[in-house]
Amino acid sequence: MSAEMRLKELGLQLPAPAAALANYVPFTISGKILIVSGQLAFGADGKLAPEHCGKLGAQVSPEAGREAARLCAINLIAQARAATGSLDAIARVLKLGAFVNAAPDFTAIAPVVNGASDLMVDVFGDKGRHARAAVGVAVLPLDSAVEIEAWFELA
Amino acid sequence: MSAEMRLKELGLQLPAPAAALANYVPFTISGKILIVSGQLAFGADGKLAPEHCGKLGAQVSPEAGREAARLCAINLIAQARAATGSLDAIARVLKLGAFVNAAPDFTAIAPVVNGASDLMVDVFGDKGRHARAAVGVAVLPLDSAVEIEAWFELA
Amino acid sequence: MSAEMRLKELGLQLPAPAAALANYVPFTISGKILIVSGQLAFGADGKLAPEHCGKLGAQVSPEAGREAARLCAINLIAQARAATGSLDAIARVLKLGAFVNAAPDFTAIAPVVNGASDLMVDVFGDKGRHARAAVGVAVLPLDSAVEIEAWFELA
Repeated sequence: MSAEMRLKELGLQLPAPAAALANYVPFTISGKILIVSGQLAFGADGKLAPEHCGKLGAQVSPEAGREAARLCAINLIAQARAATGSLDAIARVLKLGAFVNAAPDFTAIAPVVNGASDLMVDVFGDKGRHARAAVGVAVLPLDSAVEIEAWFELA
Repeated sequence: MSAEMRLKELGLQLPAPAAALANYVPFTISGKILIVSGQLAFGADGKLAPEHCGKLGAQVSPEAGREAARLCAINLIAQARAATGSLDAIARVLKLGAFVNAAPDFTAIAPVVNGASDLMVDVFGDKGRHARAAVGVAVLPLDSAVEIEAWFELA
Repeated sequence: MSAEMRLKELGLQLPAPAAALANYVPFTISGKILIVSGQLAFGADGKLAPEHCGKLGAQVSPEAGREAARLCAINLIAQARAATGSLDAIARVLKLGAFVNAAPDFTAIAPVVNGASDLMVDVFGDKGRHARAAVGVAVLPLDSAVEIEAWFELA
């Protein structure tokens, strides 16, 4: 099944891709590599919900963190479609770089980031299985609970 | 206008590129991709000025942080020229990975990193518009206020 | 001398490569680029030793941190061999992305990461000299003292 069909089957509406806020762009392409800028946990309304702001291990619950990671993934996919016109032009997800806004003693980083990894596989199937690095950082822009960047391979 | 000409017009002197301090190198090239190692906010004298050491949200003001990011970008460009002989061999800036040394409650990460993004566009024009990820980290080498790595595409 | 021969000469046994713990994979390949997921400081027994858990500048000594970085590098190399069948299929190490679990005042990040950089050169010789970014993060998965991802070029 194609990624565009899976998206439909999942009932997922991609949001309008967020504009870059400065002299950078949401994505660049070099040869077959598509690089998507770090995406925050903006919801479908383009806003950070209060439950997706703050630190894991403090204001943000593991469940809300996982949902924040999922939102980052949705925003990455929205950018990938804006870059290519159709998700079916994506050969595979190569890598996620995931940054979790975390209190210094919050070590359960991986389950939070799984919210993004799982969505990639939901949408892209086996082509969605990616390399990843996941770390806990001191703080993120706008206090987003999660930020994730992605590298895709184009078909 | 070429990047080398813009550099001259901006009156920017590139510093001697910083040597890697260990068993790594300032840059590697694979095909058309040039990867430049994370650069600290060293000034033209090769030193970290006191105002570019420490954390945003603590010792370092937003304005000084922005200037530190600009210095990181200048050092990235110096490495890119050392790698290629001329900035005109750069087809475009693909991606910046920006790390801001930040107190856990300092969420205005993006404006700090704009100091680097803006310089890339000042020097490379539209080819300087890049994907980026910007995060706040617990600490950086030598307590530099900012560290930025870059991916370029060669012409 | 080939990397496989150097490995033997160093008396280094590569561990069984760690399985990914979720919907991601230990590595992806695109063209000549091999991306290996962030590796933690697991020992040969697949476990994090107590001395490689926690923060540099707190529970973890600089010497133990350096050893943790070396273990990350060994695990990266184990994944690279699993990906290729033989380290001699690696043309070079392109980049390490190194994350050190650090107290906010621990600025000696570079010497810790040298534990990984040195091993890459021990095993790959000049082909092991890589670009790198090294930062201090708030926390890492399972409280590993270090996490490192790698980009390799295939022959």
